[in-house]
Amino acid sequence: MDIKKIKRNLHNFAKEREWEKFHSPKNLSMALSCESAELLEHFQWLTEEQSKKLSPETLTEVGEEIADILLYAFRLCDVLDLDISRIVEDKFQKNIKKYPVELARGIAKKYSKKD
Amino acid sequence: MDIKKIKRNLHNFAKEREWEKFHSPKNLSMALSCESAELLEHFQWLTEEQSKKLSPETLTEVGEEIADILLYAFRLCDVLDLDISRIVEDKFQKNIKKYPVELARGIAKKYSKKD
Amino acid sequence: MDIKKIKRNLHNFAKEREWEKFHSPKNLSMALSCESAELLEHFQWLTEEQSKKLSPETLTEVGEEIADILLYAFRLCDVLDLDISRIVEDKFQKNIKKYPVELARGIAKKYSKKD
Amino acid sequence: MDIKKIKRNLHNFAKEREWEKFHSPKNLSMALSCESAELLEHFQWLTEEQSKKLSPETLTEVGEEIADILLYAFRLCDVLDLDISRIVEDKFQKNIKKYPVELARGIAKKYSKKD
Repeated sequence: MDIKKIKRNLHNFAKEREWEKFHSPKNLSMALSCESAELLEHFQWLTEEQSKKLSPETLTEVGEEIADILLYAFRLCDVLDLDISRIVEDKFQKNIKKYPVELARGIAKKYSKKD
Repeated sequence: MDIKKIKRNLHNFAKEREWEKFHSPKNLSMALSCESAELLEHFQWLTEEQSKKLSPETLTEVGEEIADILLYAFRLCDVLDLDISRIVEDKFQKNIKKYPVELARGIAKKYSKKD
Repeated sequence: MDIKKIKRNLHNFAKEREWEKFHSPKNLSMALSCESAELLEHFQWLTEEQSKKLSPETLTEVGEEIADILLYAFRLCDVLDLDISRIVEDKFQKNIKKYPVELARGIAKKYSKKD
Repeated sequence: MDIKKIKRNLHNFAKEREWEKFHSPKNLSMALSCESAELLEHFQWLTEEQSKKLSPETLTEVGEEIADILLYAFRLCDVLDLDISRIVEDKFQKNIKKYPVELARGIAKKYSKKD
């Protein structure tokens, strides 16, 4: 995935449609929450087990919802001028430090608190 | 960004901590919504203009929230065995067809309806 | 619960603190989503069974999150001049018609689609 | 609004449709987040000013989304055996103490932090 190219494509996509005026960080954060909830909706009445065995049709729909989330997240990084690769790598390294294997192993309790 | 490597790293990160039992698609979709709301929270009382001029500290925090969203989205693609690059590219192409430049230009109304 | 009194109290609470400028419907809808996600966070790594047997401490926290949601929903009705009792009653009647007992009985599939 | 009667009606509504098996607190918290996002969706591309001047049609739709949120919140209180009036009153009193008028007046900064 050429993340810089995707960001540039999303930039041009919005520009050509004159949607830049709608794409304030505030509005894009709202769009991201809306898309996340559309993903959530697929799973709300399923058991955890059922959520692991989606039909091909549902899996396709779920994939599209995840893609919507990613596209808005990338677009938000574009308008905020954030380096996507860097924030992802930095956060991942931070999580490695925050959750040492020996302490975090199999523990839901710790994991259930806000990170 | 080497997306396959990130996915593999997230896979191992969860495996080492024995967190796979928590990472059902249902639960990960909930985590994604939680992280999206943490992003939203930064913007809830800001005007759109203020959201474009974040302080360096807030921008760092916002970047971390976006990274959390991306990491959970990648992890969800891992457990669902979805090809991240492909779903992103497919959805982007779909959006290009769905919103032709001539029809979508500057129009909030159309844009305000569910996609 | 004297719903009109609560609405009036929330109105005065915001007015006294000069928070009316922050309480646009747009911003309040964001606050509502944030509070809903704080509720969600309590349940994200729990099984459904565990979510039915909360500790007294967690139940208290969960109760406070639900209260936050209700308070913002009431406040939003205040700024939009919506009659809370009426919209609740109307929607409930609508649901009764939309989901006839004979058709909806025990069916997750139908129920899993958007209402 | 007779809140106890509404709770009882929602209880019977779910029971008659054999939906109790779907209504774990975990699942209901997901449904609440989904409904909150449907509300959010109405406002995502509107300016704050526009969100104050909704058309009658949009206002009706927005009222229905708020009603959905309230109904799920009431139903969640039913399954968790929480006293709605009490949690609302308690949280409101807590907010009064947490945000003293003199300190909170017109201050977005303080207000922008998590409560």
